[in-house]
Amino acid sequence: MGGDHGPHVTVSSAVECLKRDPETDIILVGIPGAIKAELLFLKTQLGPRLRVHAASEVVGMDEPPALALRGKKDSSMRVAINLVKNGEAQACVSAGNTGALLATSRFVLKTIEGIDRPALAAALPTIKGHTYILDLGANIDCMPEHLLQFGLMGSALISSIENKVAPSVGLLNIGEEAIKGNETVKQAAELLRDSGLNFYGNIEGNDIYKGTTDIVVCDGFVGNVTLKTSEGLAQMLATYLREEFKRNLLTKMAGLVALPVISAFKRRVDHRQYNGASLLGLRGIVVKSHGSADNYAFCAAIRRATEEVRGGMLRRISEQVAELSLHSKPLLKVNTK
Amino acid sequence: MGGDHGPHVTVSSAVECLKRDPETDIILVGIPGAIKAELLFLKTQLGPRLRVHAASEVVGMDEPPALALRGKKDSSMRVAINLVKNGEAQACVSAGNTGALLATSRFVLKTIEGIDRPALAAALPTIKGHTYILDLGANIDCMPEHLLQFGLMGSALISSIENKVAPSVGLLNIGEEAIKGNETVKQAAELLRDSGLNFYGNIEGNDIYKGTTDIVVCDGFVGNVTLKTSEGLAQMLATYLREEFKRNLLTKMAGLVALPVISAFKRRVDHRQYNGASLLGLRGIVVKSHGSADNYAFCAAIRRATEEVRGGMLRRISEQVAELSLHSKPLLKVNTK
Repeated sequence: MGGDHGPHVTVSSAVECLKRDPETDIILVGIPGAIKAELLFLKTQLGPRLRVHAASEVVGMDEPPALALRGKKDSSMRVAINLVKNGEAQACVSAGNTGALLATSRFVLKTIEGIDRPALAAALPTIKGHTYILDLGANIDCMPEHLLQFGLMGSALISSIENKVAPSVGLLNIGEEAIKGNETVKQAAELLRDSGLNFYGNIEGNDIYKGTTDIVVCDGFVGNVTLKTSEGLAQMLATYLREEFKRNLLTKMAGLVALPVISAFKRRVDHRQYNGASLLGLRGIVVKSHGSADNYAFCAAIRRATEEVRGGMLRRISEQVAELSLHSKPLLKVNTK
Repeated sequence: MGGDHGPHVTVSSAVECLKRDPETDIILVGIPGAIKAELLFLKTQLGPRLRVHAASEVVGMDEPPALALRGKKDSSMRVAINLVKNGEAQACVSAGNTGALLATSRFVLKTIEGIDRPALAAALPTIKGHTYILDLGANIDCMPEHLLQFGLMGSALISSIENKVAPSVGLLNIGEEAIKGNETVKQAAELLRDSGLNFYGNIEGNDIYKGTTDIVVCDGFVGNVTLKTSEGLAQMLATYLREEFKRNLLTKMAGLVALPVISAFKRRVDHRQYNGASLLGLRGIVVKSHGSADNYAFCAAIRRATEEVRGGMLRRISEQVAELSLHSKPLLKVNTK
């Protein structure tokens, strides 16, 4: 029910995904009337692969997470996460309120043994391919142990969905030297170095898009600012490019000639293909789609969820935690509020 | 003497600037032989507007700042900053080692009354024009009072060099609402709100390039990551665009047709025009050029320094501190290491 476009996007994306992926079944969770109206519009029948599970409430996009958690026990979000908890679904995908999704997922599913806090991870394009960055805003104040856990979870994510052995982990810092950065980052680097993970070391902001490492670890404040700054810069450059091609008749003609090239360029940097941030560290798979996602983008989020299920991501995180406890002396578990 | 290209760039840029700006005189500080060889190559004579001040040492680009500060008392950097202190020069421009420049400037010049720590500020292009962001890496761990001081100094910088009354100050955060962010940022927002500055409120990463505010305030860790991430993303997009135009004969021909437009676009986003980060909060004007600056970029850094001198930036910062102490109850001065 969530997202800026509600069931109009989520239902039609689900129908689209079922056609493309014969191995996936989908349960649409929400207000049955609204869902059925969409299905009618799409001329799609329910069946064993596409079911509806009723929920009577919807969490608003701007609703305070605590209010949603306490007050809306029959929200589509809560009910969908419950289905994951009960084993009726193997993953939950939502375009709804991020804070509410985080709070509800954590409350209902709980974290995996050895993981203190769930983190938000997403893929970004790089010169070499793509990289995964976490945390993107779930954890504002982090201890070094949390950054270690982000490295571990990112590593488990990639090794499960991309079948990559020992993906490289970079720690986002303001210099490559070990003496750089604040105390938290310095201590996190030591923990990561002793962790048995494939720790590359400190990386700087420009390394993200260079694709220096498979995983970029940072606290949620830095990750969120980094992601949104990138969005802003990409939009500004797109605006500039458009303006230059629209300047006069000659530039407009040049634009027509260059259109296929510019289109290929736009497809390559299309952020929709990277839609779907994974909530890592929970005892269940939850993927957060951008609220403004269209069909193409929402399908990417559903695909991310199916990849995590098939790659056995939850088991992989538990295995990494077990491996880590063999390698590192400090207790992984830290006390948190 | 500093920077990746040494006197080859700095001396020729100085000569170039003298031609363009008849109101500026330049003192070249460094090893006389190296400087005179450059002047000979440029067929330029010394005179009342272009002098040489000898220094016997050079700070290496990777030299630890503390070592440079203690060990090289006759470095070109130290001597140039001394000239500012003694009033023989009104500003120092360097492409050298950033850490050493910060440490030496702070040690020699000291901070302005009411300012705890110098900050690094630079301009970035936006959809509307440009914005100034600080701190860019001089201060890793910041208290709320430091962020307030950054807002104050950014405001003084813009009002002096752009003659803008009450420029708007945005606080970089992970959401616009006042409840968002970590404790430091929340408290900084309160201080800024009570400061008498034109405080816009919290802004997000994408607001930087939207040009939502004239000034973007953040701690040095976030600022440095933001700047370097932007560099990395811009480079990646440029690489992609180049690759798409070079794909085959047809796209290469489209590239030829679109060349004037792409060139105009590149000129518009050319980061060299924004070269020159201001060290704010010192009892003297110091501008740091990018180490890899070419003539065009280094001239921009020299121009920034002359603008700050002519705009009376130092006086403006002191005035802002005095105004602030009228407005805000908390003591501005905090204890720092």
